[in-house]
Amino acid sequence: MTERTLILLRHGQSEWNALNLFTGWVDVRLTNLGALEAERGGALLREKGLLPDVLHTSLLTRAIQTANIALDAADRAWIPVHRDWRLNERHYGDLQGKNKAETQEQYGEEQFMEWRRSFDVPPPVISDENEYSQAGDPRYAGIDAEMPKTEALKNVIDRLMPYWNGPIADDLNAGKTVLVTAHGNSLRALVKHLEGIGDDEISSLNIPTGIPLVYKLNDQLEAIGKGEYLDPEAAAAGAAAVASQGSKEEQ
Amino acid sequence: MTERTLILLRHGQSEWNALNLFTGWVDVRLTNLGALEAERGGALLREKGLLPDVLHTSLLTRAIQTANIALDAADRAWIPVHRDWRLNERHYGDLQGKNKAETQEQYGEEQFMEWRRSFDVPPPVISDENEYSQAGDPRYAGIDAEMPKTEALKNVIDRLMPYWNGPIADDLNAGKTVLVTAHGNSLRALVKHLEGIGDDEISSLNIPTGIPLVYKLNDQLEAIGKGEYLDPEAAAAGAAAVASQGSKEEQ
Repeated sequence: MTERTLILLRHGQSEWNALNLFTGWVDVRLTNLGALEAERGGALLREKGLLPDVLHTSLLTRAIQTANIALDAADRAWIPVHRDWRLNERHYGDLQGKNKAETQEQYGEEQFMEWRRSFDVPPPVISDENEYSQAGDPRYAGIDAEMPKTEALKNVIDRLMPYWNGPIADDLNAGKTVLVTAHGNSLRALVKHLEGIGDDEISSLNIPTGIPLVYKLNDQLEAIGKGEYLDPEAAAAGAAAVASQGSKEEQ
Repeated sequence: MTERTLILLRHGQSEWNALNLFTGWVDVRLTNLGALEAERGGALLREKGLLPDVLHTSLLTRAIQTANIALDAADRAWIPVHRDWRLNERHYGDLQGKNKAETQEQYGEEQFMEWRRSFDVPPPVISDENEYSQAGDPRYAGIDAEMPKTEALKNVIDRLMPYWNGPIADDLNAGKTVLVTAHGNSLRALVKHLEGIGDDEISSLNIPTGIPLVYKLNDQLEAIGKGEYLDPEAAAAGAAAVASQGSKEEQ
């Protein structure tokens, strides 16, 4: 058996985390804190000698910034890069750009929690005229599927798995150490697949930001055991912080 | 005729520019000034509405940093990226890591100028044991040719043209606006080709750092007129500064 290595890295704080807005596909940037988280993630890779051979990112600037900063910190700025919309954050539909507290007040706790935690019930569709719609954004001009206008986690899994089974699997099968920089929900979808987590349990999984999560995979690209964080103490603290805030997981 | 657009961008000040050392393939980083130059280059692209669809860079961190910073400033961090050793700076052979003034004193003015300005006489070969050799650098493990150990400008042209006629031409022919971020000598080689500059004249061509140089190309990918700098005044000042310093052009 040849062991494969997969490294997942969730982007750090973005401008809209601080503002408590639903983000989804809106292309906000990292804050200075978010950039520091990325730098620390890259330093951890270098310290542990876990050097990626190839990078896969979403098309969103906050994941791309995270990758650029982390790889630069790990002296691996030069590795090949693939960017794809299938690694994007969950599309938040009509909630994109809305304040979370105000949304909760307007629609009530039950509806609010269903949109945030339901496995397969997406929020209302965003209209093309909404200022936070991505209709007409040139980065999605060439995508190989219909453009999402809202998504539940199930929809994220459905559009992500072809990319996992295609370009990422190809690199892993070629013996490359693969780094994926992405988002709370696209990484949650990957971890659900790798660890066989059920539809009902997955919403309580919180992936901390900026800490590389490493999987060893077998020839069938199945995880050998659970993923391991490069800084387990910081990861536990980070996951607890995300859970208590009850908001960061959807960014 | 369909008009194609090609944008060339030379990286800004690196750590070794400031130290007056021959750099070549040694992987030094941008200084803060170099990062500011890259940011200004990206801002110029955005101001002029010249938005790249695809990026080609060398494998050297200073060109990759320049591209990351400039594209981020132009809100185009998400475009596809190709990195290739064929866009690298000229390999400076045994001179890499040496101080320019000391080299001039040691070998005399005539020999020094021949190494710097000759079209086809390269400096002495670097030994694999030299601390500034790239032998064993993992980024070159998969290159499709023998690893250079010294180069004259002619050698740069010979290894660059297959990449121009291949991946870059493919993107231009597909109608994409192509950004190339690279180095004084690899860009000099491209400009020599595009503007039909003779072997004897090319050494006096100085490309300023951080200012996008734009070519319109015809269906045969021949330049329609000369390249135009997005900030002609700054470009003229920058070229004059490079010429008077008499050192920056080889970084």
